Amino acid sequence: MSSQVWAKQQRAMVEQRLDALVVMSPENVTYTAGVAVPSQRLVRHRHAICIVPAQGDPRMICVDVEESFVRSAAAIKHVTVYNEFTQSPMQLLADDLQALGLSDGRIGIEATYLSTADAERLRQALPAARLVPVDALLAELRMIKTAEEIARLRRAAQVAEEVTLYAYHAARVGMTEVELGQIIADRYGKAGADGLTMLVVGAGERSSYANARPTERKLQPGDLLRTDVIGTIGYYYSDIARTAKLGQPTAEQAAVWSKLVDARNQALALIKPGASSLAIYQAYVEQMQRWNLPPLHFLGHGLGLSLHEEPYVNRYSDIKLQAGMVLAVEPLVWIADQWGMQLEEAVLVTEDGCESFSSPAYPLDRLVAIG
Amino acid sequence: MSSQVWAKQQRAMVEQRLDALVVMSPENVTYTAGVAVPSQRLVRHRHAICIVPAQGDPRMICVDVEESFVRSAAAIKHVTVYNEFTQSPMQLLADDLQALGLSDGRIGIEATYLSTADAERLRQALPAARLVPVDALLAELRMIKTAEEIARLRRAAQVAEEVTLYAYHAARVGMTEVELGQIIADRYGKAGADGLTMLVVGAGERSSYANARPTERKLQPGDLLRTDVIGTIGYYYSDIARTAKLGQPTAEQAAVWSKLVDARNQALALIKPGASSLAIYQAYVEQMQRWNLPPLHFLGHGLGLSLHEEPYVNRYSDIKLQAGMVLAVEPLVWIADQWGMQLEEAVLVTEDGCESFSSPAYPLDRLVAIG
Repeated sequence: MSSQVWAKQQRAMVEQRLDALVVMSPENVTYTAGVAVPSQRLVRHRHAICIVPAQGDPRMICVDVEESFVRSAAAIKHVTVYNEFTQSPMQLLADDLQALGLSDGRIGIEATYLSTADAERLRQALPAARLVPVDALLAELRMIKTAEEIARLRRAAQVAEEVTLYAYHAARVGMTEVELGQIIADRYGKAGADGLTMLVVGAGERSSYANARPTERKLQPGDLLRTDVIGTIGYYYSDIARTAKLGQPTAEQAAVWSKLVDARNQALALIKPGASSLAIYQAYVEQMQRWNLPPLHFLGHGLGLSLHEEPYVNRYSDIKLQAGMVLAVEPLVWIADQWGMQLEEAVLVTEDGCESFSSPAYPLDRLVAIG
Repeated sequence: MSSQVWAKQQRAMVEQRLDALVVMSPENVTYTAGVAVPSQRLVRHRHAICIVPAQGDPRMICVDVEESFVRSAAAIKHVTVYNEFTQSPMQLLADDLQALGLSDGRIGIEATYLSTADAERLRQALPAARLVPVDALLAELRMIKTAEEIARLRRAAQVAEEVTLYAYHAARVGMTEVELGQIIADRYGKAGADGLTMLVVGAGERSSYANARPTERKLQPGDLLRTDVIGTIGYYYSDIARTAKLGQPTAEQAAVWSKLVDARNQALALIKPGASSLAIYQAYVEQMQRWNLPPLHFLGHGLGLSLHEEPYVNRYSDIKLQAGMVLAVEPLVWIADQWGMQLEEAVLVTEDGCESFSSPAYPLDRLVAIG
């Protein structure tokens, strides 16, 4: 997969007259090198850096404790290592760019990731280089997924959905949110997940909190329960949110859920190559307003090596959808400190429409009654 | 705890003639606000910001989807929220600083965290302000832990050690690293952990990889098994690495382990207020060299809201230890692609020496035989 990525990056560089791309964010390093460098997310100064020149093979820089892992697992074979206490990765980066003959080149950097301290060091080490922010370009390159990426995203979504349904079957009155979260974490892990990045388990009024981590609150009869399984499998995110009811839903709750399902069905009917993301969002807002429900300012977001990425389906941008994009579509209603319901799934834009990664085994048509 | 933190920050500001501190990194936001803002780690542009003025109450800025959580849980009561798609948190930050009368103030920033793009925006919005990097100051403030922080770190260490021993008892030949990792993750979660940030489970030659994530490799007779339970409980890190042997250790393996125990005992005998971190490191290196073992370039590191923090016990710095510091002490031997052994625990510097958080229930004196 990595050589496909490099070719795509190098084509984009020609258009932008860039001499090299320097990527340092976890998602772009993984995209470029084919692996995640573990300590990069753990210790801020342990930078991992990929340099993709406009011609020729990419290079990589990592901290010495990761050397054996990177040499054994990364797709990039030219690896330079540094001592985190005595060497500046920015100096090594400058040295590598110089070795490539690019000390006065146009160098694409991630300006929303590179710290102001590191940018300063890099400018001092390479005063003639022109540092060009390419954050938007890199986000755009990652929008259209390869077949391998799609397979990973499909699997992550399917696992997260299956785990959610399993946990709903196991839920009982008196169980704590933490205990229910454990059931999810255990089964998600057993399916081969890298880990849960964030798990939402919110019962009762906590179902209305955007990112409610499980607490010692016990499940009570009548609670709404909202879960969101956010984690990665093979580096790619699942973001599957669902809602269940402890006992039978009230008529009002059943009606709201059914509206979320309608909103979901409408969105999926509109998602296809060439469709305007803004038009899909506006159709959603019109529905919600007709029902007197408060829409969130977005209906969906791209999903991949990062949890929220381009394209967004929201009121502030308008992107023509293309085959190969993968979107998290998430109609929801959160009434602050009262209750929340959410129906989130992952959807692939195909050549002639879209494919939901949701399985027929999940009864999307109703608020699942549990407990 | 937060008011103690603010008082400490404000005292430091007087000495440094700062008018305000602006903190944005997850660890310093949690330290200042008393909570972690979940989406901050998930979506890079969803900044959470704390402003601590030299006098008066702190303020906070967060993304709108986190508003209900932050208002209900944070110690800071003055909260401003922004729309992630239409507003720049840097503009809100500038507005807040202006409202505090500090548009030409000396403002402490985290230069190793603040991105070069955001720094640029902040400079444009507040051209008369002087932005002063205070990363080292903030790290120093977090070095001496409060009683509450110590209690959390002790519990995190004890849970991680207990979970390790439990997993070693459950380990069997033929089990995969992933399966063993699941046992650890499950029990760590049940103990109330926020989550595993990174779990190392490396068997055989993989025990030599610094950050070996569990794979489908099966445990085989004769394997060395190295684990490191890195995660947080109540926001504070555990970092407990141990080693076990599938079957009886060879005489050579038992001898290396016994040397790591000697190195650990020597380090703990030296750790006390006033001790030089460099002298402790040098004594360790001398031991390792006497034994012809390759020492890592550090023996230990501070532990707290971040995994690696000041003070380091390494060859490149010299800090006088003070009561209230908590160190991860980790003598280890990694022979690349062959085998690795590690004995890591958390140690509190007390008034007259140190206290290991290791429990007598863990048989540190020998390489645990498992399987």
